[in-house]
Amino acid sequence: MNNDKLYELLKNIENGQATADDVMQQLKTLPFDDMGYAKIDNHRQLRTGYPEVVFCQGKSIEHICGIAEKFKIQGDKNILFTRADEAVFEQIAKIIPDAKFNKLARIVIVNPCPVQNNGKKILVLTAGTSDIPVAEEAATTAEIMGNKVERIFDVGVAGLHRLLSKLDEIRSANVIIAVAGMEGALVSVIAGLVDKPVIAVPTSVGYGTNFGGLSALLGMLNSCGAGVSVVNIDNGFGAGHLASIINNM
Amino acid sequence: MNNDKLYELLKNIENGQATADDVMQQLKTLPFDDMGYAKIDNHRQLRTGYPEVVFCQGKSIEHICGIAEKFKIQGDKNILFTRADEAVFEQIAKIIPDAKFNKLARIVIVNPCPVQNNGKKILVLTAGTSDIPVAEEAATTAEIMGNKVERIFDVGVAGLHRLLSKLDEIRSANVIIAVAGMEGALVSVIAGLVDKPVIAVPTSVGYGTNFGGLSALLGMLNSCGAGVSVVNIDNGFGAGHLASIINNM
Amino acid sequence: MNNDKLYELLKNIENGQATADDVMQQLKTLPFDDMGYAKIDNHRQLRTGYPEVVFCQGKSIEHICGIAEKFKIQGDKNILFTRADEAVFEQIAKIIPDAKFNKLARIVIVNPCPVQNNGKKILVLTAGTSDIPVAEEAATTAEIMGNKVERIFDVGVAGLHRLLSKLDEIRSANVIIAVAGMEGALVSVIAGLVDKPVIAVPTSVGYGTNFGGLSALLGMLNSCGAGVSVVNIDNGFGAGHLASIINNM
Amino acid sequence: MNNDKLYELLKNIENGQATADDVMQQLKTLPFDDMGYAKIDNHRQLRTGYPEVVFCQGKSIEHICGIAEKFKIQGDKNILFTRADEAVFEQIAKIIPDAKFNKLARIVIVNPCPVQNNGKKILVLTAGTSDIPVAEEAATTAEIMGNKVERIFDVGVAGLHRLLSKLDEIRSANVIIAVAGMEGALVSVIAGLVDKPVIAVPTSVGYGTNFGGLSALLGMLNSCGAGVSVVNIDNGFGAGHLASIINNM
Amino acid sequence: MNNDKLYELLKNIENGQATADDVMQQLKTLPFDDMGYAKIDNHRQLRTGYPEVVFCQGKSIEHICGIAEKFKIQGDKNILFTRADEAVFEQIAKIIPDAKFNKLARIVIVNPCPVQNNGKKILVLTAGTSDIPVAEEAATTAEIMGNKVERIFDVGVAGLHRLLSKLDEIRSANVIIAVAGMEGALVSVIAGLVDKPVIAVPTSVGYGTNFGGLSALLGMLNSCGAGVSVVNIDNGFGAGHLASIINNM
Amino acid sequence: MNNDKLYELLKNIENGQATADDVMQQLKTLPFDDMGYAKIDNHRQLRTGYPEVVFCQGKSIEHICGIAEKFKIQGDKNILFTRADEAVFEQIAKIIPDAKFNKLARIVIVNPCPVQNNGKKILVLTAGTSDIPVAEEAATTAEIMGNKVERIFDVGVAGLHRLLSKLDEIRSANVIIAVAGMEGALVSVIAGLVDKPVIAVPTSVGYGTNFGGLSALLGMLNSCGAGVSVVNIDNGFGAGHLASIINNM
Amino acid sequence: MNNDKLYELLKNIENGQATADDVMQQLKTLPFDDMGYAKIDNHRQLRTGYPEVVFCQGKSIEHICGIAEKFKIQGDKNILFTRADEAVFEQIAKIIPDAKFNKLARIVIVNPCPVQNNGKKILVLTAGTSDIPVAEEAATTAEIMGNKVERIFDVGVAGLHRLLSKLDEIRSANVIIAVAGMEGALVSVIAGLVDKPVIAVPTSVGYGTNFGGLSALLGMLNSCGAGVSVVNIDNGFGAGHLASIINNM
Amino acid sequence: MNNDKLYELLKNIENGQATADDVMQQLKTLPFDDMGYAKIDNHRQLRTGYPEVVFCQGKSIEHICGIAEKFKIQGDKNILFTRADEAVFEQIAKIIPDAKFNKLARIVIVNPCPVQNNGKKILVLTAGTSDIPVAEEAATTAEIMGNKVERIFDVGVAGLHRLLSKLDEIRSANVIIAVAGMEGALVSVIAGLVDKPVIAVPTSVGYGTNFGGLSALLGMLNSCGAGVSVVNIDNGFGAGHLASIINNM
Repeated sequence: MNNDKLYELLKNIENGQATADDVMQQLKTLPFDDMGYAKIDNHRQLRTGYPEVVFCQGKSIEHICGIAEKFKIQGDKNILFTRADEAVFEQIAKIIPDAKFNKLARIVIVNPCPVQNNGKKILVLTAGTSDIPVAEEAATTAEIMGNKVERIFDVGVAGLHRLLSKLDEIRSANVIIAVAGMEGALVSVIAGLVDKPVIAVPTSVGYGTNFGGLSALLGMLNSCGAGVSVVNIDNGFGAGHLASIINNM
Repeated sequence: MNNDKLYELLKNIENGQATADDVMQQLKTLPFDDMGYAKIDNHRQLRTGYPEVVFCQGKSIEHICGIAEKFKIQGDKNILFTRADEAVFEQIAKIIPDAKFNKLARIVIVNPCPVQNNGKKILVLTAGTSDIPVAEEAATTAEIMGNKVERIFDVGVAGLHRLLSKLDEIRSANVIIAVAGMEGALVSVIAGLVDKPVIAVPTSVGYGTNFGGLSALLGMLNSCGAGVSVVNIDNGFGAGHLASIINNM
Repeated sequence: MNNDKLYELLKNIENGQATADDVMQQLKTLPFDDMGYAKIDNHRQLRTGYPEVVFCQGKSIEHICGIAEKFKIQGDKNILFTRADEAVFEQIAKIIPDAKFNKLARIVIVNPCPVQNNGKKILVLTAGTSDIPVAEEAATTAEIMGNKVERIFDVGVAGLHRLLSKLDEIRSANVIIAVAGMEGALVSVIAGLVDKPVIAVPTSVGYGTNFGGLSALLGMLNSCGAGVSVVNIDNGFGAGHLASIINNM
Repeated sequence: MNNDKLYELLKNIENGQATADDVMQQLKTLPFDDMGYAKIDNHRQLRTGYPEVVFCQGKSIEHICGIAEKFKIQGDKNILFTRADEAVFEQIAKIIPDAKFNKLARIVIVNPCPVQNNGKKILVLTAGTSDIPVAEEAATTAEIMGNKVERIFDVGVAGLHRLLSKLDEIRSANVIIAVAGMEGALVSVIAGLVDKPVIAVPTSVGYGTNFGGLSALLGMLNSCGAGVSVVNIDNGFGAGHLASIINNM
Repeated sequence: MNNDKLYELLKNIENGQATADDVMQQLKTLPFDDMGYAKIDNHRQLRTGYPEVVFCQGKSIEHICGIAEKFKIQGDKNILFTRADEAVFEQIAKIIPDAKFNKLARIVIVNPCPVQNNGKKILVLTAGTSDIPVAEEAATTAEIMGNKVERIFDVGVAGLHRLLSKLDEIRSANVIIAVAGMEGALVSVIAGLVDKPVIAVPTSVGYGTNFGGLSALLGMLNSCGAGVSVVNIDNGFGAGHLASIINNM
Repeated sequence: MNNDKLYELLKNIENGQATADDVMQQLKTLPFDDMGYAKIDNHRQLRTGYPEVVFCQGKSIEHICGIAEKFKIQGDKNILFTRADEAVFEQIAKIIPDAKFNKLARIVIVNPCPVQNNGKKILVLTAGTSDIPVAEEAATTAEIMGNKVERIFDVGVAGLHRLLSKLDEIRSANVIIAVAGMEGALVSVIAGLVDKPVIAVPTSVGYGTNFGGLSALLGMLNSCGAGVSVVNIDNGFGAGHLASIINNM
Repeated sequence: MNNDKLYELLKNIENGQATADDVMQQLKTLPFDDMGYAKIDNHRQLRTGYPEVVFCQGKSIEHICGIAEKFKIQGDKNILFTRADEAVFEQIAKIIPDAKFNKLARIVIVNPCPVQNNGKKILVLTAGTSDIPVAEEAATTAEIMGNKVERIFDVGVAGLHRLLSKLDEIRSANVIIAVAGMEGALVSVIAGLVDKPVIAVPTSVGYGTNFGGLSALLGMLNSCGAGVSVVNIDNGFGAGHLASIINNM
Repeated sequence: MNNDKLYELLKNIENGQATADDVMQQLKTLPFDDMGYAKIDNHRQLRTGYPEVVFCQGKSIEHICGIAEKFKIQGDKNILFTRADEAVFEQIAKIIPDAKFNKLARIVIVNPCPVQNNGKKILVLTAGTSDIPVAEEAATTAEIMGNKVERIFDVGVAGLHRLLSKLDEIRSANVIIAVAGMEGALVSVIAGLVDKPVIAVPTSVGYGTNFGGLSALLGMLNSCGAGVSVVNIDNGFGAGHLASIINNM
């Protein structure tokens, strides 16, 4: 349920296309829809400005499909199913044929429709090529939430000239998402160069003492640069979402 | 060196109060002042909009005093010396008598002068009474950087009605800093109630499996709420600084 | 060996259906049955009020079958084989055809027979949809041990209104089992709302800094709410068992 | 504010000793009393059956005294100030002269008054002599909350006969609190001997790989015994509180 | 090269069946045989009383076979290949057809020949059924090294009567190997009951906070019982070897 | 209560110096003496061959003194109070004036009397000079328990020739206690050179990634040498005790 | 782009084989080649003396192939693709048929050409046979970078005589790479025997408390030997590269 | 014992100033001097080119003084006592009055004498002012071992221009020691800019998730830059020593 849909319902009464009772029935499902195994938070967009997002990892395929069917009925636009693989997409596509799959970002978009962005730029940086899937999750999330997104990949600090050559693009961003594995030093360097919020996303890219992203996480939390905050390891969605909130203030 | 001071120097030449050579000499210290044991980043305010901040913990008293003397000569306003204790303050006060000490926040303000805020509210919340020192560090930092700051303390989720009674104040904030130790659940609850950026500050308050703030940190990083990002344990300064950057966008 | 069975054996002597020697022979297997690789604790129900439970994970299929055969001979009712998968069930079903499999809870019930509950309610809550398998293990365990069980799933604190809408059901419970992964904040909120024991079950649901359930575990151990205690990560059986003990006091 | 006090207020109106407006004013402070740095949860006893408890560790002495004065005015009985040391007690005693200090348990009782117990026994066990302070915190908490408490100390499993000699006392308890440091094996053994809830309290007693109580915590969480749940390291108060809730069901 | 074989070589000279030069050539391979990727330690049995043991896990199948061929040529008896799976055994058996495979213990014995034991008993205990593979590795190792071994499995402390019923067998042992996962409490209880060395073997059996055997390891290292020492997680071979050394003193 | 004392009591009856009733009264305290806060395990020497040992760290001075007075009355010989500091010794000495203090080993010996050793040598090695206190705790314990002890200190592997020059002494030992901090490599080297049991004691000596002895502990547990087992960090007493058990087999 | 190639380009202008504009166009790609998902650092060899290296693990096969094609066009010699498996090699070989695969070292060499070494020896040691893959990665890297490399494998300290027998070869090396898993004691022993830099490479070889190489890492970082430094777990490439830098000074 | 001293002894015989027997007696102390609690490694300088170094932390003042007296007698020059505080220095100075104390570096130099350096530069960098003590330990060690040392402090990556302004000095070094706490990003940036060996020294400077230097350590081990290796946290001595070995090749 978003603002537009709510207005449409009320208009329907005004226009005589629906009775107050009809609409009452529909609104009763607010603030959430109880499916037993899941409670769809219809109130969410009204409250936070963003629709419900379905995190697929760990959910059974039956539950995911049940949720998709609910959204099909409600007709909400641009619902994100994150951490989705090929198999999940195929099942959703059987229910909602026009669902789109961004494989690199592991995101299925249900009931996709064009989104206008606010013209202010969110920049997504990665230290290496292996960090791209997490970066794409962040970028796609931010785009679907109405932001202009620019990507600059593989500018880790081991080749500082690559990063410095992009300084103008970096400084022209409104919010920066810096995605890095290994030691995550990209974040510290970026934060010293700009006066914009830097959302750091540690990734599990690396080996040995990387310990599944712990080294990058600790590096980013200890970053001596200013304006840095950190989200969970590999949490591209969270970074994209937060960047969108800040970019729309 | 801030924008005002730079302009004043240039005006001096225009007015014949200084020669180009004189000013050249002063500007040569840009972008930083090499004191051997420390390199004062004069360029910082021009680059990031904020003055240099001196983190006192771990520095020798001699070094801190040397840095204070440098700022005395340069006349920069509202320089923050964070993580300062009584002893540090006393030494700085010998050099710069009008320095002010916020004991709870452990901050010394050198060359204090009034700051105008931008009217947009940063809200600083704490889960408990013991989290107040970290919260005060955040609040003081944000105030000195030109923000309107409101404090609501001791609204942890164990007494949810205390938190809910403050919902209007919470929702009217532009940026929220949520400070909590123990399990840090305050952050998850807050993030579900607002559509503003929530900067989570884990504190080392607690005992046993708190492990020096680790439990709160992990709780906040794993928060299922949206719009949350996290800074280092007890890092009130970082949270206040980031909140200020976002609040001034 | 349960109380009913023991009474039946003694009655048999009284009725002349068995000699004392016969029964003596049967009772000699008490207090346990030594199968070499396993020692079936026949004494357990007499001592603790609950039958032996077989934890299948890590046991060889041969050993599991051997134990099942022993129970077949003894005829004990409602023996639980926990952490059982499809393959384990199929092997047990060859030996004991009326065994039942609760796939979601991963529990096989051997020699199932109807159980009367004591009318007092144990409530099983989950924060999300992915926590359901662990919650079902707890709920099924509590039901088979003679309790009335109610389930409310997907009421995590990110959508607090979902939780608060269920407050009456929650407050009417005698014992609460709260199952949550990620940061486990559900537990802290619940504990502040009720005056009943809350058994917290951290799950391994999550990713990144979740570290296999560690974040939820630490969050729950540090919960500032009162009346909370914690069991091992994903230990639905232990929670259900303990809830049953408390609910039958 | 407890039930008795609320009744008294209402009676005052009935008796003409107070106007509705007077009482309204007093009740307005419900559900909590906002002292800025702390929010006294007056509603708590009505909601959970237990009075507010003040955890002193980490709070400034000024804040503790401020809270004590509030309770002095309100006249609540048997308020617990936990983790209090000699210095804290002395300050509180200046404000509330009849406050009592249980040094071993580190608890100050403000406005102490006799408590009737329900006759059902809570048993507090320790593995060693060094675990006694945590055990006393649990025992004192349970006593003040209206329970009969029995203590058996120093019955660790290294001398199993010491434990077994107390089996009758152990089995006659309604709820058991088992307090142990080092490897915490006491819990596993106890849990196998009784059919009552066992609340395990790991302590930080030990050295080397004890890691501040981690070894006991992990041992207890992994206990193969049934009916066990665990609270935070050294959390005697939490254990006593939970035991009281269960014991009063 | 063992003592018998060395003596035989020398006898051959005495008997004229070999020249000193021949034997010299054979002895030159002492103290080790350099195969490039491995250096067979022929000197080992002379020095430590035990033959070389080949730890298969992590070695390529080519290297394992190369080592097996070397032993085939040298004719050493009862060489152990530990951590061997079915595939490894099949390859070795192609080279040395009379090799034997103890599948449960994951041990291949090359050139097996009967071993006389010294009559003194090593007892191998397990807490549960899932600990048996590690226990069998220990028991098989001790047997092949010339010890009388007795096994008692599934006597964990959750059913203390099972353990106590075996007390006579336990007290009659010369050395005890106690194998346990989860919380490892078996070790603490055993150590309090006997005056013999107890070699504790933590296993990775368990789940959740077991952390791959860490809980059992910490429990055993912190055991308050006397006479306990610990080997690596799942290190059945090391325990069997050490027990043999002690048992042969 | 040791064997000699028991025999003396029985002799007293035989000789008419005591009645059976008198002795019965004394024996009734067996198997333990309940002091409330401590249960003295009088049965211990009969059961394990060693007297009770009092671990002082973490115990209140009152409790320690109470225990000392009990031993004074019972007259047991050579009771060890380990982890004792100067202050503890002074208090004990007031009660039992002939108590002796081994300051380096942090051990007080109550009722000291000469001990005969069995002639078989236990060797205590240290890697460095800083490991000596732990080594002395082990050595003193072994001596008081009737063993011949030899010490070789500061033979860490960084100067291998120092170690190799002592090879004869090392090989002549019956049991070896190897005490090392930092990386603990001494243990691996020793274990490859001898065919005797090596008891490894990690110490907390070191800094940085030593993590309070964790590095030495892990090194020793992973030692590729044979015949090694490990005790808790800094647990000199446990090592000395275990060595004595093995040395007396 | 290496020095030779740059010189050749300039020579081409001198010789009239190319115009300045042509070469300008080629040089414009310096300092890096932006492929979107990757930025090839052409400047690297000029700056650091070594060509770009492609770390394959975690990169998609499409990205790896894209990078390989770029190098094919540029014609750079001896480019290393590390952490490559059979599948990666097959794809690269389709693009660059003369690529070579060192399977044990998991390295593909693109555009291989003979390398002259500087005659100074780098020695690569392993403690065991299972450490060989990491050692080969180091050795191959060092060889391709122009060094003479000698390998000595399986000389762990459990059989010290194997190590000591190679002392002359060890002491004749200019730089030593010591590769070891488990407890990593090899490093401490080697460092005490030589006066050359020792680059320690912990491997993830081991089990149980090895924790994926952590035990070896901590052991090496705490090594009491002089001249030791450590690289990431299993980082053979980094060790080989660093050894080459030192060996060419 | 160094080369010069050895030669002098032999010359003494040649010149008739000493008999062979006299010198024999002195040389017999080689290769080490057994003081019981310490074994002075006289052979060390002959073997490794550097004199014995005494690590004071954790050693008793008596042992330190004993060692100092031994060096006084032997007359070795420039012996380093590291991790020495004021109290240690005062005791040593009583024995060897011309000992010098570098307070910042925490190093006492016994029998100081001028050292010639080899003209090749070792550069010691720090990220912040608080890292200086560790850096000074490294620099002083390298100087006393005969190297030219340059210091550049406080050039962390948060102000990249400070670092880049020193690029010429950095590139002119032969070996670089990079000392940093917090996230240690300085190392990654430096390693990308130079082609010389970079010895990374993590420091325990920082707070919260710094975990005593762990974050810097992990960051450095995971550094994507080439030519980096790492020593223990705060191990300035080890870094200086290793740099000297490399610089003298």
